[in-house]
Amino acid sequence: MTLSSTESPRIPDATRILTLSQSFEMRRGGVLQSVRVAYETWGSLNAERDNAVLLFTGLSPSAHAASNAEDPAPGWWEYMIGPGKPLDTNQFFVVCVNSLGSCFGSTGPASINPAIGKLFRLDFPELTVEDIAAAGHEVQRALGIERLRAVMGPSLGGMTALTYAISFPHEVKNLVLISTAARATAFAIAIRSLQREIIRSDPAWEDGFYRPNRQPVTGLCLARKLGLISYRSAQEWQQRFGHQEIAKRGGEPFGILYEIERYLDYNARKFIGGFDANCYLYLSRTMDLFDAAAHGGTLEAALNHVKVQRTLIIGVKSDLLFPLYQQQELADVLRGCGREVQFVALESISGHDSFLIDQERFGSAVQTFCAKL
Amino acid sequence: MTLSSTESPRIPDATRILTLSQSFEMRRGGVLQSVRVAYETWGSLNAERDNAVLLFTGLSPSAHAASNAEDPAPGWWEYMIGPGKPLDTNQFFVVCVNSLGSCFGSTGPASINPAIGKLFRLDFPELTVEDIAAAGHEVQRALGIERLRAVMGPSLGGMTALTYAISFPHEVKNLVLISTAARATAFAIAIRSLQREIIRSDPAWEDGFYRPNRQPVTGLCLARKLGLISYRSAQEWQQRFGHQEIAKRGGEPFGILYEIERYLDYNARKFIGGFDANCYLYLSRTMDLFDAAAHGGTLEAALNHVKVQRTLIIGVKSDLLFPLYQQQELADVLRGCGREVQFVALESISGHDSFLIDQERFGSAVQTFCAKL
Repeated sequence: MTLSSTESPRIPDATRILTLSQSFEMRRGGVLQSVRVAYETWGSLNAERDNAVLLFTGLSPSAHAASNAEDPAPGWWEYMIGPGKPLDTNQFFVVCVNSLGSCFGSTGPASINPAIGKLFRLDFPELTVEDIAAAGHEVQRALGIERLRAVMGPSLGGMTALTYAISFPHEVKNLVLISTAARATAFAIAIRSLQREIIRSDPAWEDGFYRPNRQPVTGLCLARKLGLISYRSAQEWQQRFGHQEIAKRGGEPFGILYEIERYLDYNARKFIGGFDANCYLYLSRTMDLFDAAAHGGTLEAALNHVKVQRTLIIGVKSDLLFPLYQQQELADVLRGCGREVQFVALESISGHDSFLIDQERFGSAVQTFCAKL
Repeated sequence: MTLSSTESPRIPDATRILTLSQSFEMRRGGVLQSVRVAYETWGSLNAERDNAVLLFTGLSPSAHAASNAEDPAPGWWEYMIGPGKPLDTNQFFVVCVNSLGSCFGSTGPASINPAIGKLFRLDFPELTVEDIAAAGHEVQRALGIERLRAVMGPSLGGMTALTYAISFPHEVKNLVLISTAARATAFAIAIRSLQREIIRSDPAWEDGFYRPNRQPVTGLCLARKLGLISYRSAQEWQQRFGHQEIAKRGGEPFGILYEIERYLDYNARKFIGGFDANCYLYLSRTMDLFDAAAHGGTLEAALNHVKVQRTLIIGVKSDLLFPLYQQQELADVLRGCGREVQFVALESISGHDSFLIDQERFGSAVQTFCAKL
């Protein structure tokens, strides 16, 4: 396998950057100066400033969730956001935040540490979901929004949205949690821990001191393949690929022979050059560290802080990484706290990635809920 | 992570070696000379020579399936084999074969190629399950056994046992297939392909030219962790580890923090020095390549060759790698071919590895079946 890249992650064209003037205290220690929080918006904030929906992302996307006038490139949730779409920008002012710690405009390990004029790399402080939520909150403040119509997110973004509703209870009217959990399963930690170790074992990682345009691409590619394995489902692959061999076998011993191998290789290579390795390590670990119960001692005590009117929780039966019982748990405990919860268990076969793939089921669930907000 | 090893895989003390005088033709091309097939035995062959049970192994074990007088070290299936145990050596003469291509006495990539006096390495011909079965058949012949009381195997060993019953239909009286399949799923191929790529991406692999006592231990360790993830189940780990942090965190960034990470690390390191990397690559690929339907065009046509009296098929609901529907398929098709099949679906929570772990359920199923043979 020959892999190389001279690309660095690119900030999308329509991304705006908020630079904080005050210092930013990290939850597990450390203070950042001149923190930047990247975001994009769709639709218009109404005169009452009460139609904003704040969207947090999974581990790897930028704030470019959908195309817009300034950037016609399709976003990572293109089918969901736009005029007449489930998250209808004729009705809502949608704001998507690039997570703190990421590499698409927000401050992270790949940013210059202003204190020393060099890249943070592993000197970036330990990152938590609470820090990502707090950075997103600065965007809300900067936009002059007192109360959000909804906070929403899938996967890591769902952890962030939940934390947001716990941390800023009077500023969130409704909540949408998608394929997420109150904490990681041991299985999910195992997968992510191995992905990080694969990256760190690539000599090109250089203990975090690789040059930004010389990413440890072999490690990133292998970790991405493991990601793809955990993001999708065995059922989907069996339907798509089965035991099918590729048409023409190369000469390399142990080279690609089956369609599933070609699929993994093709999709992992697409990822190369698109993400920073150290940022990946931080954001990945953040998902392991998260435990909503930390906000009160028990999950019940934590979710008792949530004061939203209505909550939509969506999960998928084929999700290996955030299994359905975790969304069921969130629904049960929130209901026990007196919240009105709509829980939707979908039959999608694309596993954790279903929210990106299954437009029909996810679009319908979000549209039905949002129409009444 | 600092890993190193100066150990090479060790042939167990009680292992016998059969050296073939005739040349050995490999199914996909290539001819081997002076092939060695390693095996161990328990119990005694009776005067009628009709009480032998031939056992094939999963990917990584040696022929040392259980302790015996010459080697008191516990074997990989210690609970299953012995006097009064489910595979009762008061009744049966049990023979376990080290797979062709492995590194515990049988000829494989880590053996000297007698034609050139150097290690085979990647010059070893492509290895198939059919070759492993054929090598095992030489042991049967050498022991002067015309018909086996049973052929048995878990995982890769189950694929081998099935192939044996197809290839030598009149020499097998009964068949036991455990946590196995007629062919690999796309998911299983994905996992194994990634494991192989991880090993091949370790610079210490040196394109297969590492010294035998300088294995690519980092790659082997990472691949083993992925193996452990796929061999067990999310349910088991959730019960055992949940989100539990270790007592004392080291100083390394992204070092071990959760119990599940410590478990993976401990168990993967145990594997180091115990297996040869090139042998691993060959045996792993063998499982992808296998397709029982090749013996006739369809699975029905292939299994129509099987002439055994009775078949026991065991599967486990939590098995990710060989999901239960694959054992159900084998049972259905064999019944369709007129064979008498006992199909047992177990509730074990240890995934694919359950046959090694769940002594009670597996022991009971095998004991009940074998008592009537």
